[in-house]
Amino acid sequence: MADFQHHIQLIREEVNRELAGLPIPKNPRYLYDPIRFSLQGIGKRFRPILVHLTGQALSANQDGLTNIALAVELLHTFTLVHDDIMDNDDTRHGLPTLHEKWDESTAILAGDAIFVLAQLKVTLVENHATEIMNYFNKVTLEICEGQAWDKEFENDLTISEESYLKMIDCKTGALLGACAALPAIMEGLDDQTVQKLDQFGRLLGKGFQLQDDLLELISDAEKMGKSLGSDLAEGKQTYPVILARNQKENEWKELISPFLSHPNEQSMERIKTFLDETGITQQTIEKYESFFNEARDTLHIIPEDRRADLDLFIQLIEKRTY
Amino acid sequence: MADFQHHIQLIREEVNRELAGLPIPKNPRYLYDPIRFSLQGIGKRFRPILVHLTGQALSANQDGLTNIALAVELLHTFTLVHDDIMDNDDTRHGLPTLHEKWDESTAILAGDAIFVLAQLKVTLVENHATEIMNYFNKVTLEICEGQAWDKEFENDLTISEESYLKMIDCKTGALLGACAALPAIMEGLDDQTVQKLDQFGRLLGKGFQLQDDLLELISDAEKMGKSLGSDLAEGKQTYPVILARNQKENEWKELISPFLSHPNEQSMERIKTFLDETGITQQTIEKYESFFNEARDTLHIIPEDRRADLDLFIQLIEKRTY
Repeated sequence: MADFQHHIQLIREEVNRELAGLPIPKNPRYLYDPIRFSLQGIGKRFRPILVHLTGQALSANQDGLTNIALAVELLHTFTLVHDDIMDNDDTRHGLPTLHEKWDESTAILAGDAIFVLAQLKVTLVENHATEIMNYFNKVTLEICEGQAWDKEFENDLTISEESYLKMIDCKTGALLGACAALPAIMEGLDDQTVQKLDQFGRLLGKGFQLQDDLLELISDAEKMGKSLGSDLAEGKQTYPVILARNQKENEWKELISPFLSHPNEQSMERIKTFLDETGITQQTIEKYESFFNEARDTLHIIPEDRRADLDLFIQLIEKRTY
Repeated sequence: MADFQHHIQLIREEVNRELAGLPIPKNPRYLYDPIRFSLQGIGKRFRPILVHLTGQALSANQDGLTNIALAVELLHTFTLVHDDIMDNDDTRHGLPTLHEKWDESTAILAGDAIFVLAQLKVTLVENHATEIMNYFNKVTLEICEGQAWDKEFENDLTISEESYLKMIDCKTGALLGACAALPAIMEGLDDQTVQKLDQFGRLLGKGFQLQDDLLELISDAEKMGKSLGSDLAEGKQTYPVILARNQKENEWKELISPFLSHPNEQSMERIKTFLDETGITQQTIEKYESFFNEARDTLHIIPEDRRADLDLFIQLIEKRTY
């Protein structure tokens, strides 16, 4: 595990170096100041790491992986910048969001240009270029659809567990699927392998998201780098919220109403205790564990002696506390 | 000219048919309702028409042209949707803008997805695919830069004519340049031809924009499909405004102050009369005419017997009144 930690730290540093080395001119400052700010080396870089680890398992072309990894991280950054506007989030990774530090217009334009930078990285991939670009953009459309479902679901108290899981498959799963599938596409591997790797990434992504839903409620605000319960306050129907609503409708209503009208730490604490005592915390953990286990199984498409790092990567995500 | 009018009408109808035929699903309605609304057949479609006319002059591949034309129109639509948010515009082509009809979040997401649809069209171009995608995205970055300069220039009373022309070269010129250059890239023509065609489109674009600046001040509000003087009220430093500020500083200040504090038709009329009487209207017309003439000259890269339609296209734009 120590070797692995070192290995992914090297990848993370390379990704940060590449991001810092993007040709971001000084002017116009209206555009490039916020872009520089948003590319600072503070993300966990899970997505580009997944690209590199999958690519290494497949002995894929290194330059191609570097470009895909950057494109994927830039795409992710673009979606965060725009989602933060749409979701009224004012903090991310402990820093103000772009629209908070500047304004909405600035953040819209910066997000657009970051997405263009992602596209420019994709066009540098030489092998199976058209398939790569097509896959990349189809996934982006799926992410937009996921965000649209997420917005539709806000404050909708009839959303089922199934609809929710479909939404996060688009919003979070699709991009992790692409991280695992794109290296295989670049190497010209058969459709079945590509689909299995896509599946693996999506399962990992869904596990990751449910974990996030829970961490957002019970973790340490400082570690998460954002205010806890902000999804809750925004009326987001996350996985534990849907379970609470379905299993303990009346008690949940009594707990959530005072929080929604006046979000504060005390009622947040009551919500945490309730989720623990009713077993909803545990059910959420079991659900995401089942996704991680399924991801592990799906990974069997890669020979055992080549998938050790990907297995460790699943573990790394599984054990995270923020 | 009647034949030509018929010819471009056919192109316009084809573009509208292609736009209507895009695979836009019903759900999620949060995403696809506004996209459907924004793709209605009401734009002038100047950009895809330019793609087709240039491509026909070069005997370029028809399927390729169709995809480039669609991609360019979708890119244009995406920039309008986001620019309208940034510029607080509530009407376009006589219809409410997306963020006005829905809200800002909806419009941000719809714009993003329209841009993805543009990318998906680009990936369908088979010849010189990578160069096409690269050019397309570089141009998009330039458009973002143009919008950033435009925002920086708002309410900046020191902007020079030169800076302004550089800004519109990015914001409007670059895309018309791409409309003319992309068909040549697809056909694998030499760099010099590509650059000349890009230049031709940019000159046309700059002429078009200065014409727009003037029409926005003096045309018929109903025909323009938006409220006149809205750029002025937003503090935009357009070409006639810069001339007025530079040539008649004090008189301009006295005219513009009451309009800015209380935009109304009467002070708008006074501004129009002032621009006429000081010759600023005429100077603006001469400036855009010089761009159109230069565009005509640049077009000589195409043999005389093949460029008739493009010459007529310049005329068409030159003579527009809205």
